[in-house]
Amino acid sequence: MGFDRKEYEFLGEIGLGPTNVGCFIDGKWKASGSEVSSVNPSNNQAIAKIREASMGDYEEGMRACSEAAKTWMNIPAPKRGEIVRQIGEAFRAKLEHLGRLVSLEMGKILAEGIGEVQEIIDMCDYAVGLSRQLNGSIIPSERPEHMMLEVWNPLGIVGVITAFNFPCAVLGWNACIALVCGNCVVWKGAPTTPLVTIAVTKLVAEVLAKNNLPGAIFSSFCGGAEIGQAIAKDTRIPLVSFTGSSKVGLMVRQTVSERFGKCLLELSGNNAIIVMDDADIALAVRSILFAAVGTAGQRCTTCRRLYLQESIYENALDQLVEAYKQVRVGDPLEKGTLVGPLHTRASRESFEKGIGTIKSQGGKILVGGSVMESEGNFVQPTIIEITPDASVVKEELFAPVLYVMKFKSLEEAIEMNNSVPQGLSSSIFTRRPEVIFKWIGPCGSDCGIVNVNIPTNGAEIGGAFGGEKATGGGREAGSDSWKQYMRRSTCTINYGNELPLAQGINFG
Amino acid sequence: MGFDRKEYEFLGEIGLGPTNVGCFIDGKWKASGSEVSSVNPSNNQAIAKIREASMGDYEEGMRACSEAAKTWMNIPAPKRGEIVRQIGEAFRAKLEHLGRLVSLEMGKILAEGIGEVQEIIDMCDYAVGLSRQLNGSIIPSERPEHMMLEVWNPLGIVGVITAFNFPCAVLGWNACIALVCGNCVVWKGAPTTPLVTIAVTKLVAEVLAKNNLPGAIFSSFCGGAEIGQAIAKDTRIPLVSFTGSSKVGLMVRQTVSERFGKCLLELSGNNAIIVMDDADIALAVRSILFAAVGTAGQRCTTCRRLYLQESIYENALDQLVEAYKQVRVGDPLEKGTLVGPLHTRASRESFEKGIGTIKSQGGKILVGGSVMESEGNFVQPTIIEITPDASVVKEELFAPVLYVMKFKSLEEAIEMNNSVPQGLSSSIFTRRPEVIFKWIGPCGSDCGIVNVNIPTNGAEIGGAFGGEKATGGGREAGSDSWKQYMRRSTCTINYGNELPLAQGINFG
Amino acid sequence: MGFDRKEYEFLGEIGLGPTNVGCFIDGKWKASGSEVSSVNPSNNQAIAKIREASMGDYEEGMRACSEAAKTWMNIPAPKRGEIVRQIGEAFRAKLEHLGRLVSLEMGKILAEGIGEVQEIIDMCDYAVGLSRQLNGSIIPSERPEHMMLEVWNPLGIVGVITAFNFPCAVLGWNACIALVCGNCVVWKGAPTTPLVTIAVTKLVAEVLAKNNLPGAIFSSFCGGAEIGQAIAKDTRIPLVSFTGSSKVGLMVRQTVSERFGKCLLELSGNNAIIVMDDADIALAVRSILFAAVGTAGQRCTTCRRLYLQESIYENALDQLVEAYKQVRVGDPLEKGTLVGPLHTRASRESFEKGIGTIKSQGGKILVGGSVMESEGNFVQPTIIEITPDASVVKEELFAPVLYVMKFKSLEEAIEMNNSVPQGLSSSIFTRRPEVIFKWIGPCGSDCGIVNVNIPTNGAEIGGAFGGEKATGGGREAGSDSWKQYMRRSTCTINYGNELPLAQGINFG
Amino acid sequence: MGFDRKEYEFLGEIGLGPTNVGCFIDGKWKASGSEVSSVNPSNNQAIAKIREASMGDYEEGMRACSEAAKTWMNIPAPKRGEIVRQIGEAFRAKLEHLGRLVSLEMGKILAEGIGEVQEIIDMCDYAVGLSRQLNGSIIPSERPEHMMLEVWNPLGIVGVITAFNFPCAVLGWNACIALVCGNCVVWKGAPTTPLVTIAVTKLVAEVLAKNNLPGAIFSSFCGGAEIGQAIAKDTRIPLVSFTGSSKVGLMVRQTVSERFGKCLLELSGNNAIIVMDDADIALAVRSILFAAVGTAGQRCTTCRRLYLQESIYENALDQLVEAYKQVRVGDPLEKGTLVGPLHTRASRESFEKGIGTIKSQGGKILVGGSVMESEGNFVQPTIIEITPDASVVKEELFAPVLYVMKFKSLEEAIEMNNSVPQGLSSSIFTRRPEVIFKWIGPCGSDCGIVNVNIPTNGAEIGGAFGGEKATGGGREAGSDSWKQYMRRSTCTINYGNELPLAQGINFG
Repeated sequence: MGFDRKEYEFLGEIGLGPTNVGCFIDGKWKASGSEVSSVNPSNNQAIAKIREASMGDYEEGMRACSEAAKTWMNIPAPKRGEIVRQIGEAFRAKLEHLGRLVSLEMGKILAEGIGEVQEIIDMCDYAVGLSRQLNGSIIPSERPEHMMLEVWNPLGIVGVITAFNFPCAVLGWNACIALVCGNCVVWKGAPTTPLVTIAVTKLVAEVLAKNNLPGAIFSSFCGGAEIGQAIAKDTRIPLVSFTGSSKVGLMVRQTVSERFGKCLLELSGNNAIIVMDDADIALAVRSILFAAVGTAGQRCTTCRRLYLQESIYENALDQLVEAYKQVRVGDPLEKGTLVGPLHTRASRESFEKGIGTIKSQGGKILVGGSVMESEGNFVQPTIIEITPDASVVKEELFAPVLYVMKFKSLEEAIEMNNSVPQGLSSSIFTRRPEVIFKWIGPCGSDCGIVNVNIPTNGAEIGGAFGGEKATGGGREAGSDSWKQYMRRSTCTINYGNELPLAQGINFG
Repeated sequence: MGFDRKEYEFLGEIGLGPTNVGCFIDGKWKASGSEVSSVNPSNNQAIAKIREASMGDYEEGMRACSEAAKTWMNIPAPKRGEIVRQIGEAFRAKLEHLGRLVSLEMGKILAEGIGEVQEIIDMCDYAVGLSRQLNGSIIPSERPEHMMLEVWNPLGIVGVITAFNFPCAVLGWNACIALVCGNCVVWKGAPTTPLVTIAVTKLVAEVLAKNNLPGAIFSSFCGGAEIGQAIAKDTRIPLVSFTGSSKVGLMVRQTVSERFGKCLLELSGNNAIIVMDDADIALAVRSILFAAVGTAGQRCTTCRRLYLQESIYENALDQLVEAYKQVRVGDPLEKGTLVGPLHTRASRESFEKGIGTIKSQGGKILVGGSVMESEGNFVQPTIIEITPDASVVKEELFAPVLYVMKFKSLEEAIEMNNSVPQGLSSSIFTRRPEVIFKWIGPCGSDCGIVNVNIPTNGAEIGGAFGGEKATGGGREAGSDSWKQYMRRSTCTINYGNELPLAQGINFG
Repeated sequence: MGFDRKEYEFLGEIGLGPTNVGCFIDGKWKASGSEVSSVNPSNNQAIAKIREASMGDYEEGMRACSEAAKTWMNIPAPKRGEIVRQIGEAFRAKLEHLGRLVSLEMGKILAEGIGEVQEIIDMCDYAVGLSRQLNGSIIPSERPEHMMLEVWNPLGIVGVITAFNFPCAVLGWNACIALVCGNCVVWKGAPTTPLVTIAVTKLVAEVLAKNNLPGAIFSSFCGGAEIGQAIAKDTRIPLVSFTGSSKVGLMVRQTVSERFGKCLLELSGNNAIIVMDDADIALAVRSILFAAVGTAGQRCTTCRRLYLQESIYENALDQLVEAYKQVRVGDPLEKGTLVGPLHTRASRESFEKGIGTIKSQGGKILVGGSVMESEGNFVQPTIIEITPDASVVKEELFAPVLYVMKFKSLEEAIEMNNSVPQGLSSSIFTRRPEVIFKWIGPCGSDCGIVNVNIPTNGAEIGGAFGGEKATGGGREAGSDSWKQYMRRSTCTINYGNELPLAQGINFG
Repeated sequence: MGFDRKEYEFLGEIGLGPTNVGCFIDGKWKASGSEVSSVNPSNNQAIAKIREASMGDYEEGMRACSEAAKTWMNIPAPKRGEIVRQIGEAFRAKLEHLGRLVSLEMGKILAEGIGEVQEIIDMCDYAVGLSRQLNGSIIPSERPEHMMLEVWNPLGIVGVITAFNFPCAVLGWNACIALVCGNCVVWKGAPTTPLVTIAVTKLVAEVLAKNNLPGAIFSSFCGGAEIGQAIAKDTRIPLVSFTGSSKVGLMVRQTVSERFGKCLLELSGNNAIIVMDDADIALAVRSILFAAVGTAGQRCTTCRRLYLQESIYENALDQLVEAYKQVRVGDPLEKGTLVGPLHTRASRESFEKGIGTIKSQGGKILVGGSVMESEGNFVQPTIIEITPDASVVKEELFAPVLYVMKFKSLEEAIEMNNSVPQGLSSSIFTRRPEVIFKWIGPCGSDCGIVNVNIPTNGAEIGGAFGGEKATGGGREAGSDSWKQYMRRSTCTINYGNELPLAQGINFG
């Protein structure tokens, strides 16, 4: 009754088996949808089986969740924080195992898998503090014996639809905040990472059970587009947080808008790094490498466009090509590997097709450019020399493909940076204050993330994460992101006996 | 060459004549669209003529505005504040005249017309202070020699589409904030209040000219749906602030979303007042009267639903009916008038049709219910006794029609309050703290405005104004509403020589 | 080599023995001052011996601390937060034992002893979140190409002098915040609670050691006034947080001011409860009981003055006297005990002397009034009927003595509440909103803590704790209290080439 | 009955005459103290006579002020803002005249005189906005059916004692904020600038009168140390804002502390500029000139210490000496003058004596160093080359004397900057980001103002102004400075029927 392979046995430590139930509804594990397999991207063989959610399961779960919402929103925020603290402790205890699972099922290298789980733990710690700081305001009223309050109340239920590339961290960003804010969470993980979804849910479920709280406070469904669409349409879910492509994200937004619900979108990125002629080239090259090949180019913050100022173009490019040649592609769980496989066979095909299009648009391959012969979905990290007007440069190819271009002036570089539909992340390398402050100012980068001398990826949780334009405009994690998970009431209380009107109006 | 009527001559004091050019583009008054008349709702006769914007005018205006945006966003915020201060002074100097025009063209009583202009002045004063407080944050970074900043930058251009019922205050809410935030403003006023649009624009234009600033910083178009749609589709306008019905608002949102733009929506309200058995009935009755018949029931915050606790039902209703009988309907510019005409002939017809539907659904007219014989659009303030399940109760009839219903418990009253698609304003009358705090808490009113012992209407500018659900979710005026008019950049600056990664990840 | 009594053996679990070293300096336990005993207030017998700090120890400790400060302030705040998180975990693991020690050495009942330790744990959780939110601001500059920042930096070293009544919670309030803010902490606990001081320090020390951090980041000295004065005078300590009497606190402030240092003072309280005629009397009586006899009247927030509105005076007083008669005084570690002994023999004498003075000023004893025959420092919880003009009413007698007085109107009650030199805590019982809002408004209570329908004591950590007037004006724990532990820099950076001046001044 | 000189006649425009009453108490101008003359520092001749306040006047004024406080604190903050707006308009109308008076009576050049008045106007504009943003907080409570509020209430009366060097701007910083916060203001201007005090007070008084408000809301006393001391001792004044020397400021603080009042201190500065070897030398030289000789060296933010990195020492110093030689000293009202006289004869003597001491400590005069022969108090702007260990370098000589010193490394320069008792302002000139961020970080400048590439003086009102260490720790003008003018109440309201305790304590 064990796993096919011995190296999968650690999965037992985090509640997984060869076959798994993919739905946590009303505090119970049950599922009546179809059975699917989770596939190892390093060899395209099944790791384990999962029974997905049916629409009946969904409806049952949502009914329970709606009930649980009434309980959860009335628990004081700091008490909710205590639950999230315990969830953080549960993850801390399983950090290694869960990180290994992320690496195994998603394909990212182990250090990144563990880093992703660490991010949930950081989020829990952060959210605990936040649970005593979801502050409203008392605003001076212009009327005597009136008090004006801005009160923040829970929304009720938050739907979270996450993508394969961060199969658990994105859930963490959303759920930690949503929960302390007083919302129940309905989660649909990526269809290709069901084991992470189940393992994460189990940890949360145990904490709820231990505290005698309704399990339906956290409801989780393995499944595909049908479940996603149900969430988008469901009027019981005032907020849907969606991570995925701009194309699908737009459809989700239109669907949710139709019913006057709210969306929090984290969509496509197409992120650039600019290297100025005064930059620390070595620092830049290391950053570009991490930004472009990390997670095999499958981060939303992956650097896909590189702009080098003309006087350092050759030099910087030579160093970068040299660095690419050292990169070890292989089993993500093996020590020394920097780049694992793409997540699916389809991604590998997409890479191949993409390279074809690139060539047809005049792109010149400086390094890489091929898929690798293997059972898995491995491809070569690739650098392309191309002109800025090539249309591929404006699109997000979800693979380790980097376009390199040349520029003359800062203004030109910023214009190039801003010339794509997406607006997630961006970075400049320079040592001049005037460049730094222009870059982050009104005429600088138009992205949500605007870095200096660090890669486009690797955000800290204390800031707000997200992007502008086709990236969708949502903000997750730190800063005042929590406000998106609550509704705001402007309350004016008259505690006197008179009825003065605002703007000094006399009526009657 | 003068006005038809002597009482219109004051319009000359605010830059209006018998015929007017309805477009302020690139700092010049010009228009090549069709000629329309502004009609006095008290007699349905023309006040003056206006040449509207053509699509060519629009395009010319937007090109100039895009240029002006580069200038305006680079002027320091406190200097922009100084311009807004001067705009406020310009309105202050014309308060009476402009208030009179609002009353004349829109139909609201003079006190409300002047109150509306006062609201712009208040907004200017507020925005001046804000111009030194558009604060970003410095957030502790987890990495040594890194600084994390949250920077707020201008969006560039903000489109503002306003409705007839507040022909200038809503512009004020948006433009004052948008301007200090560093954005140019493109304004389309309501097609039926072009004179207000022009007069307001003239005051702003003069201040810009006096300060040698491009007039295109503030661009204004008289026109209809075609211009509105152009704004919604225009990728040069990152934010569209729209005030109007939920139906049109949804269309605007979907259009703007298609191009990944942002919306700030202030849509339909269907606002309730709840009177508890312990309330100060006299205070409640005066509040209901102002809330239900003020502006002839054409405020988005107008009270349309009244819930009376059963034990005080008869008493409160009697007093209210009595109060309605005292209300003077008539020329809004005349002293003593409390209710002016509806804004258009169409509104009057809509009222008539609405009364028919109400009757067919079992509504019983307690007072009013008829249109009044006159040249103008006068209708009787109306109270309807009806059951909560009548479908008319869930819709916004933009006229002074109030539905009265009975309830037993606070819980039932809150459920009724929350049972409509809209979520703008709501109010409870009570003297019990436990009721007050429940009402403003997680299980209380689901509206954006949640009042106690004051009407549903008459918001102060210091708070955030707007509503949830089909009201659209936008927030204008005070609190942190300004953030919607800016874009947020999360900036991490590495000023050291090392490259530590977030979440402690080791890469390579 | 064991403890005298078997019931003290649990002390071994938290690092204590029959003899102890009372100084943690430069990461080492060493002390060369005189040997003192810690005494059990229930029987006035020694629990264990402690070697106190000499002035030489102090100097050695401060030198190490000054060095450690350079390290600690350069560690990123979120990393400091991680250390505080581990400290919280260390306390969580020893919650029961440490709570028991607090109860044993201080004399408060076990539930309160454990509650006190829980408060440190809560503070740690809170401070972890705070470590990513010690936000500075970016303020719009009126000058082009200028950026204005408000940056918060660590002070370096914070001195914390705590009192016997909260031998560890007050350290927690200060140290958790001070540490995440980047400061080293120098702690002098109360001379009569050295075992708590040592046990707490050991837990912190272990965490520092485990993380290879200098132990001197947290320096701790058992000792008396000499060490306290050294801290007050020490120019290496920019901030001294002192908890104690107004008299000593004033001396500390003047000493620290002389050297232009800063103080955070938590001094005497003399707290009142007002009961209005519409109050829930049962709720009020339970609250008064907890507020007046909890911790045997030795909290700074203990209720010492009770104002009853005349119409409910008799009734409320009868119920209260009845409740007092049920209170069990005795061994604080025993189940069922509500009131333990006073902390020292001197406190007991002070109580006796106080009762004498009270009688001489016309106070009438309604219940209690005597010391209890025993080895320990037990006294009877006491209610005194007295007139407001008696001078004892204006002083803080640190014992369970409650003065009861009568009032007619709310205004009179507020005036009485505000008529004492101290301004820590206050509470009103009422069910009328107009009373609540007046009470918390400009003409209401002048205290730092202004409660409604809860006791004067038992603050949550999320708010700012502290009082006005002779209570010293400091604020600890939540809200923006952290700002007191940092220094603020207003930074203007010119990144352009021009030199525009503020206020538009032309110079040369 | 006119002024002695024709050029003084403009004083009539701002309510001044040859003899003046120096006290505004209870809304009336009256004074019974001694008569003094205001002296023109350019010629040491009297401008006009002033009757100062007697202690009787003070007492009468304070009694009226205490009464007025009850009225003022109950007026809604935005309405108070409207009054401050009108005050701003009153100053705007008299900007030129008042600026001229400041220049005439204080001795600063006209551009600075007008700039000072502009600063009050800016403060008024700012305070108006603030009047709707004096926000308290609603903090999540850990107890069900409890609400925790942080409420800000007025203090009642704020005493403001200002110095001669900014005879009206400092009043503006304090009064604008104090007034919108709901406090009455009691002002004692400098004894040597009574005409400014009276003229400013008249403008405020007129606005109060026009609005039918008690004049005692703003009370003003011409007078000396006796009045100052009365304010410091007066228990009716919870906050005393004092600007002056560290020595006097410390005395004020100790006096105010004795009665548990609060101080806001703006004391001595001894401000340094550091010029790094990569700096824009021309920009630095212009900045140093403005910082060192502006206001004849009599700003608290005047640059008194200049640290030049060794490799650019000669070059920068040569340019600076050259610039000094161009500076025109003379009548401050004359066009082209950059440096007016010192304020008093005593200041001139102090300069002379200071130069003697400097020489005796080895200081070498590079330029200037002498008093100038004239009726007035003119002295030469002076540059001294000196070693850092000279004790004069640690003191504030209130005259245009600049000490120049050499340094090797950034660390050394920062240490030198931080080595004086004072901690007001500081500035570095550099083009390296790592230098900028270190300078504003934990190991950088320890001052309250930490500039980059701008002078030490010339602060904008949007930031918080003030300094650390012997500068007194107060913060005025922008940011959250307003909190110092209010008292904070942490309010917990129980609106339920239960009595849960914080930290989960069970009692009884």
